[in-house]
Amino acid sequence: MENQRPLIFVSNDDGIMSKGLSALIKCLRPIGEIVVMAPDTHRSGTSCSMTVTEPIHYQLIRKDVGLTVYKCSGTPTDCTKLAFHTVLNHKPDLVVAGINHGDNSSVNAHYSGTMGAVIEGCLKGVPSIAFSLCNHDLNANFDATEPYVRHISDMVLKNGLPALTCLNVNFPDTKDLKGIRICEQAKGQWVNEWENFAHRDDTHYYWLTGNFEDTDTENQQSDHWALANGYVAITPTTVDLTAYKFMEELKTWF
Amino acid sequence: MENQRPLIFVSNDDGIMSKGLSALIKCLRPIGEIVVMAPDTHRSGTSCSMTVTEPIHYQLIRKDVGLTVYKCSGTPTDCTKLAFHTVLNHKPDLVVAGINHGDNSSVNAHYSGTMGAVIEGCLKGVPSIAFSLCNHDLNANFDATEPYVRHISDMVLKNGLPALTCLNVNFPDTKDLKGIRICEQAKGQWVNEWENFAHRDDTHYYWLTGNFEDTDTENQQSDHWALANGYVAITPTTVDLTAYKFMEELKTWF
Repeated sequence: MENQRPLIFVSNDDGIMSKGLSALIKCLRPIGEIVVMAPDTHRSGTSCSMTVTEPIHYQLIRKDVGLTVYKCSGTPTDCTKLAFHTVLNHKPDLVVAGINHGDNSSVNAHYSGTMGAVIEGCLKGVPSIAFSLCNHDLNANFDATEPYVRHISDMVLKNGLPALTCLNVNFPDTKDLKGIRICEQAKGQWVNEWENFAHRDDTHYYWLTGNFEDTDTENQQSDHWALANGYVAITPTTVDLTAYKFMEELKTWF
Repeated sequence: MENQRPLIFVSNDDGIMSKGLSALIKCLRPIGEIVVMAPDTHRSGTSCSMTVTEPIHYQLIRKDVGLTVYKCSGTPTDCTKLAFHTVLNHKPDLVVAGINHGDNSSVNAHYSGTMGAVIEGCLKGVPSIAFSLCNHDLNANFDATEPYVRHISDMVLKNGLPALTCLNVNFPDTKDLKGIRICEQAKGQWVNEWENFAHRDDTHYYWLTGNFEDTDTENQQSDHWALANGYVAITPTTVDLTAYKFMEELKTWF
């Protein structure tokens, strides 16, 4: 019987000890066999980066009925790649990452290691979902997200996703979620990105910070609008980066 | 007069000492004022990753007429972000990265640090181009690429690029380039991705390797087809990851 349950691969970028990962596992255990491979430490902001200049390794840390957990010395993308190559007996039915401590909506999707794990699942042809909560706190409360995480995962298991398409799901930090909106990436950019401080030898050091300048505030289709108004934002996300609309014009240039 | 020449920001992921970076600077000096900020070491496969757990710094290493060069301790994405915040007096007219030692076509665009620098330029609203040669050798020969690098850069300076769109340009490793093709990302995936070897304590270590399985070989619009047939592949690339085509169907799910 158990072999016929869906096989769900889980990763994240906040690392194996994060509360959001535990919340995600709790949501998904009732609906499938869970195999986790997550970074052994915090890997936020690692995007789709891969470890190329040194070898990586993984270690079993928990084996229970329907749940096997490994930690890995690599990035989230490495975790997905390595789990597919090693600990997964067959191609999983679903790849899920999160629940991220912090917002991965809008352009943040480019920088997110959580999205890195999910983009890798999608590139490998498996329906894949990233879940993120707009709260960076280590002790953030994920309770309100749980029925949504389970329902969205169920729907993707049932319906699949189109080729080269994954889901980027972001939750506003509220107990009173108003329901789901299907969104597009809000347009905008990070500004004031560096905090500058002098070190003792007069070298200046810069630490990443910043605030997001939304140039799309009136757009009620955007993920930012949904989040600002209490909705769960599901942004269908493509891994085919081709700008098809520009191809014909570009052909006239050369 | 010189202040009216285009301001061109240059970065890469192979690091400040790479031959491809020198080739790129040589191509671009005749057409603009060049400011380089490139990683102080090899940063291949770092995608759009950012340094979030420690501060970074940069250092001036060369100041010449029309050319200023800095090295930086961060990733390619950090380089673009930090240069915009510090050493660039005004928004540049063009962001260019490369010339990468190795192929960034197809799904490699997701992993490429060269593309990371360029995606960041694009997100900041500047026309941005990545150049890559399909040869990983440290001593690769970039001579054949140079007229194309200059011509493509000239065209982008003249015409601009649509919002949220950058160019990913890949060169086959041949002296006899047959001209330019406007392409889409080849579909496919990396397989056999890990080399496994036992260490003395029986821990297994895995080093990233692999070969690309092209599932799109018949598609003459793909960047792989262009490269395999001796053409320069220009893939217009979007930084808006929204899968617009799937939005309406997804709305019916919930």
